[in-house]
This record gives sequence, structure tokens and C-alpha cells, in this order.
Amino acid sequence: MSILIKNAAILSLDNEGKFSWLEGDIFIKGDIIEKIGRKLDVKADVVIDGKDKAAIPGFVNAHTHAAMTLFRGYADDLPLDIWLNKKIWPVEAKLTPEDVYWGVKLAILEMIKGGITAYGDMYFFMDEEAEAVKEAGIRASLSVGLIAVSGDPSIKLKEAEDFVARWNGEAEGRITVMFGPHAPYTCPPDFLKEVVSAAEQYGVGIHTHLAETKKEVEDMYKLYGKSPVKVYEEAGVLNLHVLAAHCVHLTSDDIEILKNNEVFVVHNPQSNLKLGSGVAPVPEMLKKGISVALGTDGAASNNNLDIFEEMRTAALLHKGINCDPTLVTASEAVKMATLWGAEALGLKNVGRIEPGKKADIVLLDFNAPHLQPKIDNLAQIVYSAGSADVNTVIIDGKIVMKDREVLTLDEERIFKEVQKRVKRLISN
Amino acid sequence: MSILIKNAAILSLDNEGKFSWLEGDIFIKGDIIEKIGRKLDVKADVVIDGKDKAAIPGFVNAHTHAAMTLFRGYADDLPLDIWLNKKIWPVEAKLTPEDVYWGVKLAILEMIKGGITAYGDMYFFMDEEAEAVKEAGIRASLSVGLIAVSGDPSIKLKEAEDFVARWNGEAEGRITVMFGPHAPYTCPPDFLKEVVSAAEQYGVGIHTHLAETKKEVEDMYKLYGKSPVKVYEEAGVLNLHVLAAHCVHLTSDDIEILKNNEVFVVHNPQSNLKLGSGVAPVPEMLKKGISVALGTDGAASNNNLDIFEEMRTAALLHKGINCDPTLVTASEAVKMATLWGAEALGLKNVGRIEPGKKADIVLLDFNAPHLQPKIDNLAQIVYSAGSADVNTVIIDGKIVMKDREVLTLDEERIFKEVQKRVKRLISN
Repeated sequence: MSILIKNAAILSLDNEGKFSWLEGDIFIKGDIIEKIGRKLDVKADVVIDGKDKAAIPGFVNAHTHAAMTLFRGYADDLPLDIWLNKKIWPVEAKLTPEDVYWGVKLAILEMIKGGITAYGDMYFFMDEEAEAVKEAGIRASLSVGLIAVSGDPSIKLKEAEDFVARWNGEAEGRITVMFGPHAPYTCPPDFLKEVVSAAEQYGVGIHTHLAETKKEVEDMYKLYGKSPVKVYEEAGVLNLHVLAAHCVHLTSDDIEILKNNEVFVVHNPQSNLKLGSGVAPVPEMLKKGISVALGTDGAASNNNLDIFEEMRTAALLHKGINCDPTLVTASEAVKMATLWGAEALGLKNVGRIEPGKKADIVLLDFNAPHLQPKIDNLAQIVYSAGSADVNTVIIDGKIVMKDREVLTLDEERIFKEVQKRVKRLISN
Repeated sequence: MSILIKNAAILSLDNEGKFSWLEGDIFIKGDIIEKIGRKLDVKADVVIDGKDKAAIPGFVNAHTHAAMTLFRGYADDLPLDIWLNKKIWPVEAKLTPEDVYWGVKLAILEMIKGGITAYGDMYFFMDEEAEAVKEAGIRASLSVGLIAVSGDPSIKLKEAEDFVARWNGEAEGRITVMFGPHAPYTCPPDFLKEVVSAAEQYGVGIHTHLAETKKEVEDMYKLYGKSPVKVYEEAGVLNLHVLAAHCVHLTSDDIEILKNNEVFVVHNPQSNLKLGSGVAPVPEMLKKGISVALGTDGAASNNNLDIFEEMRTAALLHKGINCDPTLVTASEAVKMATLWGAEALGLKNVGRIEPGKKADIVLLDFNAPHLQPKIDNLAQIVYSAGSADVNTVIIDGKIVMKDREVLTLDEERIFKEVQKRVKRLISN
């Protein structure tokens, strides 16, 4: 199958990391971007009119818990311990594999509609999530969440290994996997070392939460006399490819360690704000050259899976609280949402529109009042656009959304299944 | 003309300030909400199906500079002095009355599409803005911006008086007016006193910027030995109905003064973040019982005119930076965006869906993945919904948007006029 996108404004990234716009065509053959240029003289199975549209790399939601769409709007404006202990954990305990399957489908539907072409997840009943990913046509890095402070950790690790063996590279390579030790406070150092050796054995990375709350940091100092980042370093975790979500409470030493170990940080600004966790030192990390991606976190702490909003919040928040309007530029925000997100998931040929890269492309419709006038497309995308401006989504060379209709998922069925299950889950 | 909205989820506010949802019908006669109830037995000229829709009071964008949509995406990520001196002021100097007219039309188009039914503005060429408001069918409180540190202040004040006399109560009462002394640093106390006596004479309020930046506060201390709020108090400004935009840098004494004088504060969280101004002490003001509304500010410092985003940012930001997830609840955010916005504009019969009130009503379509499941509509609106979920907008009893098509404005013409004018404005 081949696709030709004609006359779009194409977002290109040069070798110095500078974005520019090229008016022209994109030719996609199979899953790969084959050619980019003005008035390409090629024949394609499908031709898409790109007029008044911007072609940008698909967004990457580098950290979420997709199935938690089931709990959107269920627990808000509450103290963190009540949110977790009285609301989230009790309903999570009731989840069935099928609940997760439908919650994930709702999440993927929402993400595709918002231009997200790849995401990173850590949760449970991950076989069902992988099935949903396979069917929906999205790209995902999936991890079984590992908590070693309850149950039998070795059985859990074995299950995670089985998942890794079963799913890595499946769905024409759209599914990749990592090990998912939940956090330093739920995975003691001895267990972390076992996870590290399993990850080394399978040649995959680590997806984890790190330094999310002040309490986590205080608890780590009480238990081990050191910061969560240092605990991970000493357990050997940081020798691997690590996607570390949150990184809100860091010392300058911690930032140095993250830099030296090439850790991929995922900033979840809206979730961190909503749960009252605080604000990650993103400008400091960017200045050090740390790769910072964006994530929505789960819908129970956000409450949507919208990377436009995370881009915008990241670009605005750090300017405001540091009283410096030059911090986190539009260009940086777009890189966080695309290329650096792909890097965090370990995807080397995703995240930019360039010949030879995977065809994960989003067409944004600029024919909307909030995107006029046409002055600076990049600023309009970061500071003014929204999910509803996404018109067409191509993942792995396949059109998964056309004119806002997702072709791979049955929206009505998903809404019904989710509503039915939620009714059961939140009843006493 | 009469309208019947059938089977919607209607947002009601009781006398204790508690929101609840009523499944039922709304009957509108002329510009007034006549009846609300289940299965109303009435005949209407137009019947709207409210199934799967929420009927909420129209949003109020209590502080903006509508015509600045012309500069959206023109100046971003810059230090404040360069943004103002090198970018915004030079292009503003080139503006013609017709430019303002078309910029305002673009703004109103965007605002209606985002569910905004009333807004507050201070700018120049306000006759052209008033004409645009009249034609578009929106409600607005308009003020001629007054800067006394250049030109002849008395001529400017006279022009503002003429504007007030000409437009107050026009467009079937949709247009109201205030005097618009720009800020304490551009309006010395003697001039402020003249404005106050003009406002008293005409029986109208004051729309102003107050305590927006740290520099403003420092300059006021240097010049007068007191805070901007105190300068306004001593000039007699606070004896009137005052809509004070920003109020970012306040002492606890300032907050006390705002409370005692019943000042209506307008919080512009995204603008304050983007320009690096800081974060207003909203939780402290709410605790004191100060009425805090929401504004987008102009599009050059936002960059859109979207009250969903301001609601969400207000609800998230204060939780995050105070590490307290119970601050600025969904319910408070909705009040800031509706009832308290109407109060700030001095509109006593707008801002809630109740018999006898003006029919300014927005229908939100809940048939979208990011608004599923249906658990808590209020939380979904604040934490997950967006402008594109607005389906129908009724202002003053007239349908101005139906199924996302704005009936009072010519979208294509507006885009063309704006693009043409912007080309001239930003050329050297």
C-alpha cells in the first residue's frame, strides 16, 4: 500500500535540531516514508489533499495507564491518600481482564483522535492491552507493572518475563516491551536487581515512576539514607535504557546522575499539578541536555489523554513559575511531544518526518478560527491548537483516522462496554 | 421567538452555591429562561434535542483584548520588554479601525465556538468593536483603554465618555460599558480621580489591569511608596464597581483591601504563565470570599481565547504549586467561568440557568471519547472537555451557533480579511 499526501505544510527537523516548514508532498510506501518534496511525480494507492493542513510527526504519550480511562471523573479534588486508598485502589482491585481491554480501547480511541501515534504504558492484564493495541493499529511500549511489597514478587517477575517473551516485536513491530518496576518505594533494591538482570537477559528497557512526590523522597531517605534516583543508580537500574516518569523532586546531584546515565525523563505536568505533586525542574534538565518527553499519566489524574495540553502546560508552566518567558520554547515543546517521546520509548526510526523513517504522521487542519492568522505554525500548534484540529492519522503507513473518523475502532461499542463496566466497578 | 431544549442534563446552582444536574427541558421565551422542568408541556418555535448533551450557563471571558487575535503567533517565547517594545507596540501603532473590526470578529467567532457568551474588553477603536459585537450577537462589556502617560489625557477621557454615552445598553442591552484606565503605572492618581468622577457621573464601572508584574509593584513603591492596590484605593477607584485583571502580586493587606472594597478579580492564568508574570494567589482570594472570574487576556499572550483551558489551568495550577490537590475544585472553576465572570462584568441576570435569567446557554456534546464514561459531568467539563465539545450556543435567547456552525458570522470572509491585514501589519 502506498499513500501520497499532497501540498501540506511539512514539519522538518534539521541536523542542528531546528524546525522548518516545507510546502510539499510526502510519499509513503508500506510502513516507511519514502520521499518528501515539491510536486512529487509518483503514483500512489491513496492520495490525501494536504491543503491548509500541517503534516507533523505523530505525538508520543510516553507515560500513561490507558485502562484508567474507566475512572475518568471518578475521583477528583481529593487529598492524595484518600484518592488512592479510598477511591482508586478499591476499584482497581475489581478490574477484570476484559475491563482493561475496553478501558484501553477507549484510551486508544481518544489518543488517536488527539494525534497520538505511540504511547508507553505500565499496568496489569497487559495481554488484553496488547490485544487492543494490535487491533487498533497504534504503536505502544508495554510493561507489566511490578510491585514487590505485596504478593510473591518472583511469580510477578516471571509473569512479566512471559509477557516480554510473548509480545516483543508483535503486531508488525508496533508493540515493543519493557520491564515495569513500579517505583523505588514499591520495589526494594534486591528486587530491582532481579528485574535488571531479567531486562538485560531479554535486551529490553525499564519503564518506571521516579521521584514523583515529596513523600517518596522523604521515605527513601528514611529507608536507605539516599534519594530515589541514587537508590536506582546503586541497584544498577540506570545502566539500562530507562524511561523515568515524573522526576518532580530532584536534587542537582540527581539531575547529574540522570544526565550521566542517559535516563529518558517523562514529564507529566498536568498529572503532577492535579495530584498536588509539584513541578518537575524541566528547564534545568533541558539545559543539561537530558531528553525530556511528555506523558498524560492515567485519566484518573489528568483527566484526559491529550498531548496538546501537556505540550501547552509544559511550555506555559515553567515560564510562569520561573518568571522567565523564554523557557521551554514552542520548538522544545514539540520535540518533547514527538522525537524525544519516541526516544523515551526506545523507537529509533520514529518521531520525525524524514525519508527512511516510519510513517507515523498526523495532519492538522488549520482551517479554524483559533489557528488564524497563518503566521507561525509551530506557535499555533503549541499555544493554540487542540485535539479536535487533528484531521488524519497515519500509523506505520496505515490510515487509522480519516476526517476525524477512527477506522480501526468501533466508537459506539466502546462507549457502551465502558459505561456498563464502570457501573459495576463503582457500585458498592 | 421561543426555544425548547429537550432532555438535556441541566446544570443548576442552588442558593447554597452547590451545583446539581437535572435531566429535563428548558423553555426560552424571547431573551429569558421561562421554565425548567421534566417533560415541559409547551409549544416552541424551535425544538433542540438535548440528548447526551449538557446545558450549562454560557462562559464569560472577563478580560481580553479581542483584536489581538491579529497577533496570534507573532511574538512568542520572548523576554517581556522585547515582546512589548519590539513586537506588540510597533504593530499596534499600525492598526486601523477596520483592522480592529476584523480582529474582533475573528475573536468573537473563536469565542462563540468555545462556548463564550459574554466577554469583557479594553482596547482602542472601540466603536468598531461595538459594531462587531452588535452584528455577531454576543454580549460584551467594552472599555476604551486609557493611557495618560502619553498624548493628551483629557482628550482621551472625553473620547471614552463619548463612547460610554453612545454604546451603554445598545444592541438590545447586550453591550454594556465601563471606563478603562489601563493600569496604575500608565494612569497617575490625578488622572485616576478624573476617571472615577466620570464613571460616577455615568453610573458605570472600571475595567483595569492591576498588580500584573513584579516590576509594576516595585515601580509603584518607588513612585508612591505603596502597592498598586493601595494607589487605586487612595485615588478612590475601589469605591466603584471594579473589574481588576491579573492581581498576581498581592500582599495580604492588598487582599484585605480587595475584599473590603468588593473588587471583582479576573484571573488570567495562561497569560500570566506565558509572559512569565507569575501566579496569582487565587486560593487565598477564594478563601477570603473574593469573587474571582477568568480571562484569556489577548491572543498575543495566550494564544487562544478558550475558557475551558483557563478553567483547567486554574484548577490544576494552584493544586500543583501549593502541593494541595483539594484547592480550586471543579465546582469553583465552573463558577469562575460562569457566574463570577458575569458578576465581574456587572451582569446581574446572567451566569446561571434559572427561570427569569437571560437565556445565555451552551450545549456541550458528551458523545466523545474523552468525556466517557458518564460519571461526573462537572469533572469531565473542567478536567477533560474542550472547545470543540460545544455544540450549540444561545445568547440573549437567540441561537448563534448550531451544530458548531456560527450563524451570525462569515468564517471564510473573516479568515481572508484577517490574513490580508496581518500581512500588512507585520511587514516592515
